[in-house]
Amino acid sequence: MRIVALAGGIGGARFLRGLKDVVAPGDEITVIGNTGDDIHLFGLKVCPDLDTVMYTLGGGIHEDQGWGRAEESYAVKDELAAYGVGPSWFGLGDKDFATHIVRTQMLGAGYPLSAVTEALCDRWQPGVRLLPMSDDRVETHVRITDADGTRAVHFQEYWVKLHAAVDAEAIIPVGADTAKPAPGVLEAIAAADVILFPPSNPVVSIGTILAVPGIRQAVASAPAPVVGLSPIIGGAPVRGMADKVLAAVGVEATAEAVALHYGCDLIDGWLVDEADAASVDAVTAGGIRCLAVPLLMTDPAATAAMARAALELAEQVRA
Amino acid sequence: MRIVALAGGIGGARFLRGLKDVVAPGDEITVIGNTGDDIHLFGLKVCPDLDTVMYTLGGGIHEDQGWGRAEESYAVKDELAAYGVGPSWFGLGDKDFATHIVRTQMLGAGYPLSAVTEALCDRWQPGVRLLPMSDDRVETHVRITDADGTRAVHFQEYWVKLHAAVDAEAIIPVGADTAKPAPGVLEAIAAADVILFPPSNPVVSIGTILAVPGIRQAVASAPAPVVGLSPIIGGAPVRGMADKVLAAVGVEATAEAVALHYGCDLIDGWLVDEADAASVDAVTAGGIRCLAVPLLMTDPAATAAMARAALELAEQVRA
Repeated sequence: MRIVALAGGIGGARFLRGLKDVVAPGDEITVIGNTGDDIHLFGLKVCPDLDTVMYTLGGGIHEDQGWGRAEESYAVKDELAAYGVGPSWFGLGDKDFATHIVRTQMLGAGYPLSAVTEALCDRWQPGVRLLPMSDDRVETHVRITDADGTRAVHFQEYWVKLHAAVDAEAIIPVGADTAKPAPGVLEAIAAADVILFPPSNPVVSIGTILAVPGIRQAVASAPAPVVGLSPIIGGAPVRGMADKVLAAVGVEATAEAVALHYGCDLIDGWLVDEADAASVDAVTAGGIRCLAVPLLMTDPAATAAMARAALELAEQVRA
Repeated sequence: MRIVALAGGIGGARFLRGLKDVVAPGDEITVIGNTGDDIHLFGLKVCPDLDTVMYTLGGGIHEDQGWGRAEESYAVKDELAAYGVGPSWFGLGDKDFATHIVRTQMLGAGYPLSAVTEALCDRWQPGVRLLPMSDDRVETHVRITDADGTRAVHFQEYWVKLHAAVDAEAIIPVGADTAKPAPGVLEAIAAADVILFPPSNPVVSIGTILAVPGIRQAVASAPAPVVGLSPIIGGAPVRGMADKVLAAVGVEATAEAVALHYGCDLIDGWLVDEADAASVDAVTAGGIRCLAVPLLMTDPAATAAMARAALELAEQVRA
């Protein structure tokens, strides 16, 4: 079976680990990773979502934190601060720096991001085929208004530095309009037996991937069932501050609203948490097959059960 | 008093520390640093000699090693090796990496190396004005013949990887012919009260600085006395493998031969070690005022005494 998953960072990576636990030997998982949260820091190209997937599936992730490397040190970061060179709000560890140095060097030598990602994965052996959504530069910006006036800031500045403390007025995937899907992305979607939307951020993760021209249409027209898992449980994001960016696109932070935001032209099935069982009827009425199952990734077994439920819902859709 | 010193790495840096100990308050030291041993590693611009001077005078040097940072760690290097990305023979520590990251970022933003060096020195406060010999790229290559045939390798590859184990057939300062002295270099030389050649490598350190068009002539025509200190004691380099590169330019590894290699058109005074007292007459016959004094930088006091002897010899030349 060929499974394609669109993934953001922490939530997506953890779900994918559960997915790997339940697929059969020989099944192939292709991950289309969000690169809209990529950022240039200290002259280096940092791809937080791709790295979170790679480190998580490759066994290098800092488990408690959910991002960055296990047993990390911060000598480089401390030295950069000693030079007065910022930003200091983005936590890059020494081991992580090496990844960005290798990536930046390869990009500088002319390799596209997809080839660089493949080379990095040669080491990490994540057990999935990890494709960036695009080899072209796409960076999500967020329009905000605060004491400094109305302006657009990089998503990482909004998320990590400002902790999404001010309202997001608009989400702008800069460069997405002219970006092309990375090699293999459209082909993987077209050839998929199942397409999954993990419980990643519907706006700045999945939404950004879908904003690359061609990808939304490829998913919508793919023969495979498309099943998503709600990142919203009981009216609040499981992790992160997804409600902030949902508000920017006029979507309520509910499991039901997110499903209808994707829409029945895009997704065929939707899993909500048991806490949102009351929303099943409304989602179903929207033309999307919906089930309520436990959606908290509290441990590997619970995460694997979610993945299994998603694959089973896909089979129901197909049948 | 305005003192200008041309300096390479370890030997030059240690001498400069002694020089700082003996100058009067208000005296200004301008160091023209060799950049011919600069190398691009992992996409980063590494300037070993400039950094050795900066770290040594700024209190950050690894004392025993003579290069790199004190209390250094190697997480980045280990990770790069885990990615299979080399070279592994050049020892870059985590703290040191930060310097190269800052430098590379600033160069990428369009700042010339001289401005970058000044910015780095803002932190280190080396107590001297440190100027790269040139803002233009100059990289010393060494022609060798070994099992792989006759070829030119980067100086660092010859020195650090190959340990100068094969003969150097030629020393080629690639790019020097079209390089321009960095801003302030010629002005500092012209305005100097004393010009010093520390016991740095006469070929790949001082020689490379002098290979930048305009610098040799500026030194030769400067009104200030020019005094050098022999890096050769008793027919052998005090440190490093200077004899290898001296042979490449047809110069014997003796205190006398190095003085005459610089020549009386360039230097006015020359200090040899007491072990080479027998060479004083020959150097003097070559038109260079020469004295034999202890030239081993065994401790700060000995190094300071060497600097004092060099300044006194300059006064003798002037008088």
